Amino acid sequence: MLTYDMEQRGSKPLYEYLYICIREDILKGFLKPGEKLPSKRDMARNMNIALITVENAYAQLIIEGYVTAKEKRGYFVNAVTAGTETGTTEVRREERAPEEKDMKIREEASIVDFSSLELKEDAFPFKTWAKLMRRILEDRQEAFLQKPEGRGIPELRRAVAEYLRKAKGLNVTEDRIVVGPGTEYLHHLILQLLGPGKIVAVEDPGYKKVGMIYESNGVKCLHVPVDENGLVVEKLKKSNASLVHLSPSHHFPTGCVMPIGRRKALLEWAENENAFILEDDYDSEFRFDGRPVPALASLNDEKVIYLNTFTKTLAPSIRIAYMVLPGVLNRRYDEKLSFYSGAVPSFEQYTLASFIGEGYYERHVNRMRNYYRAQRARILQAFRDSALSEVADVEEHAAGLHFILKLHTDNDEELLKALSRKKIRLTPVSDFCYNDRQKYSHSFLVYYTDQETEKIKWAFDTIAESIKK
Amino acid sequence: MLTYDMEQRGSKPLYEYLYICIREDILKGFLKPGEKLPSKRDMARNMNIALITVENAYAQLIIEGYVTAKEKRGYFVNAVTAGTETGTTEVRREERAPEEKDMKIREEASIVDFSSLELKEDAFPFKTWAKLMRRILEDRQEAFLQKPEGRGIPELRRAVAEYLRKAKGLNVTEDRIVVGPGTEYLHHLILQLLGPGKIVAVEDPGYKKVGMIYESNGVKCLHVPVDENGLVVEKLKKSNASLVHLSPSHHFPTGCVMPIGRRKALLEWAENENAFILEDDYDSEFRFDGRPVPALASLNDEKVIYLNTFTKTLAPSIRIAYMVLPGVLNRRYDEKLSFYSGAVPSFEQYTLASFIGEGYYERHVNRMRNYYRAQRARILQAFRDSALSEVADVEEHAAGLHFILKLHTDNDEELLKALSRKKIRLTPVSDFCYNDRQKYSHSFLVYYTDQETEKIKWAFDTIAESIKK
Repeated sequence: MLTYDMEQRGSKPLYEYLYICIREDILKGFLKPGEKLPSKRDMARNMNIALITVENAYAQLIIEGYVTAKEKRGYFVNAVTAGTETGTTEVRREERAPEEKDMKIREEASIVDFSSLELKEDAFPFKTWAKLMRRILEDRQEAFLQKPEGRGIPELRRAVAEYLRKAKGLNVTEDRIVVGPGTEYLHHLILQLLGPGKIVAVEDPGYKKVGMIYESNGVKCLHVPVDENGLVVEKLKKSNASLVHLSPSHHFPTGCVMPIGRRKALLEWAENENAFILEDDYDSEFRFDGRPVPALASLNDEKVIYLNTFTKTLAPSIRIAYMVLPGVLNRRYDEKLSFYSGAVPSFEQYTLASFIGEGYYERHVNRMRNYYRAQRARILQAFRDSALSEVADVEEHAAGLHFILKLHTDNDEELLKALSRKKIRLTPVSDFCYNDRQKYSHSFLVYYTDQETEKIKWAFDTIAESIKK
Repeated sequence: MLTYDMEQRGSKPLYEYLYICIREDILKGFLKPGEKLPSKRDMARNMNIALITVENAYAQLIIEGYVTAKEKRGYFVNAVTAGTETGTTEVRREERAPEEKDMKIREEASIVDFSSLELKEDAFPFKTWAKLMRRILEDRQEAFLQKPEGRGIPELRRAVAEYLRKAKGLNVTEDRIVVGPGTEYLHHLILQLLGPGKIVAVEDPGYKKVGMIYESNGVKCLHVPVDENGLVVEKLKKSNASLVHLSPSHHFPTGCVMPIGRRKALLEWAENENAFILEDDYDSEFRFDGRPVPALASLNDEKVIYLNTFTKTLAPSIRIAYMVLPGVLNRRYDEKLSFYSGAVPSFEQYTLASFIGEGYYERHVNRMRNYYRAQRARILQAFRDSALSEVADVEEHAAGLHFILKLHTDNDEELLKALSRKKIRLTPVSDFCYNDRQKYSHSFLVYYTDQETEKIKWAFDTIAESIKK
């Protein structure tokens, strides 16, 4: 039976080490596609570790598409070569509460807004940030007189590289990193690295702004459909796209994770068609069970541009994003784009470098992850306690800042109008569709709002009422 | 005889009011091309004002091309309609010191670098800036949680608008202003406002980076020659350019000011060919006699995009620039580009808004202007005191941060090699040429360095020695 030497794990948590061992055996072919893994209980007993450890390891393998759980049959290894895509992500649905609900609707004047998140004042680590700013003001006066390097100050790039090594398993050195005032700016640099007249593929549905940026710069955009495993790689073939933008670890807005099989197919496409993949890891910090999904860039850093921002995790006023460039694009940056001045103030760069380097960032992200996890649990509980659980399903992947609500209705427009009269705001997934809006009808985003539980329950009950009418 | 009612001047200085009155009479045609103005002495006596007042008013009219001074004959009105370009800027040359120089060359190991300026630590108003930053940290905590508006925070745009009204005669409201993290970023927005497939004209010689930015974005650049009155408008005709980038108030690197006649011709071109003018007013704060040259945008704000930055006047680490858009482009921005997030941190924006609004910026610019004026005077005196004055001319326009040295040599390359051995650095004007490098041979930039007078004199003597060899 499958056994690993847990003494070799170093400082890694047990479950993470177990997950890595099994993953390596799958990748190396020691565990064959279709092969059944030991049951969780057997595995735990055999290796003398806790059941929860095995559960966490298996859950991670499932999230990343290495393994499929088949109900009442067990855990099976997926094919992870590029050609086949048998990896399917188990879509967890919250249990619906079976009991009848009290239907007393409170008619309140207040608005319940599920369509976005407002950052609370105490969500930003203001005291720490201010303390570091004051220190930089004292210690770094000379920095005000220096033109910041185009790529960003070395101190910040080093801090980011170390964070990526630690948190994302990306083996990155600072000389591959380019810092900019937001991802939008970095998209402009990427466009220039590609050169004019190129085609860029984006996800449909997806984060619409990305397509807008490329189209606003005269680039032809190809809107590629997404299924339950993310972007459909088959549709990229013969598209002549030079770049594809996607979020493989947490697709927006559906939340799906691209399994390893499709990741490999995507990389193979990029190799064959001499294209690049732009991995937008925009909210990968917020995964509530298992460990973070490894970045696509960790599989092949010569084909993948890794992009991330501090705007989501810190505050929208912090305009700092970064990308990690593949070698060939990095050299092209040095040759063609190093004439650009840095566009992020040195002062902010030094502050952020200290914030990351001294461990505040990691602590802050952990705190925010716990906060959103709690909000999510609260809202899911309110859903189960409400009448909505009878006429809707929740589709979610234990990650990000929202889940998807699938309503058992046949007229989204009428429903939204009725909700608008009740001052309840929901954003339909179809708002993020380019071609086939129909495909995502009846699906809506629910952000992990911090509004009172009573109000949320009232809103859910009201939505249920509107559906049943 | 020409008389104006000086009682009407309000709070304006006498010379400025006189300058405006004469300018208006020229523009309205009350003073005809070729007409002789009263002598300065007659004018002062007739109006009962000081001679210096008239001198200052006339000097400003000359700088801006409304009037030409003919030696021993007097002051004559120029034609200022677009078709004719009789306005010529009087190129002042520093008197060369006639006496023989002590040729003792001190062979020092030190470097004298005329090719750039290093900002001294006390040049940045650090204490004030830090004080404001601390206050913003206290008072504006909520700003950290807000996404800055794409155009920039209203407080900063209002402060900039007021400054432009006061200092540049630009009648601007904040809703026409767009703030960005440096002019390079704003060029990217302008490109998107124009749309793809356009031709952009740039000055040759000129600020090379601008052409690089446009070409890096796949735009075809037309490099238009510059003569002693700035960009040759004739060459723009039938070029199909949609935009021309230039610095009419202080061309880089020659320093020439575009006279009013050519300004009108340029505007006429833009009207006729449905094009826009991008006025880069990059160092207009540094003019050492007369008042600032009015911005081209003040003549026609529907054809001119006005662009400026705080990087030159404050510090290179402050990444804040702005542009004022003509109505049609401003509406296009709202329609097409308002999806962009602001790219300058709110914190910096609030700090700068207070810095301008509370009068610190104006005081700082005045201080820096005095500083550079003194450096310039010191270096010009060193030139006159040196042997170089026998084998070189200075060409300068009492503005900016450098002047042009025209060396009586026939082999620039040999000379630069010799100077390099002596560790003296000079940048040739031809480095900023695109097509005809020959045209600007023997001309070099001399920045207002703060190196010791003795060293500067030694360097000038050494250059003279190298020329004579």
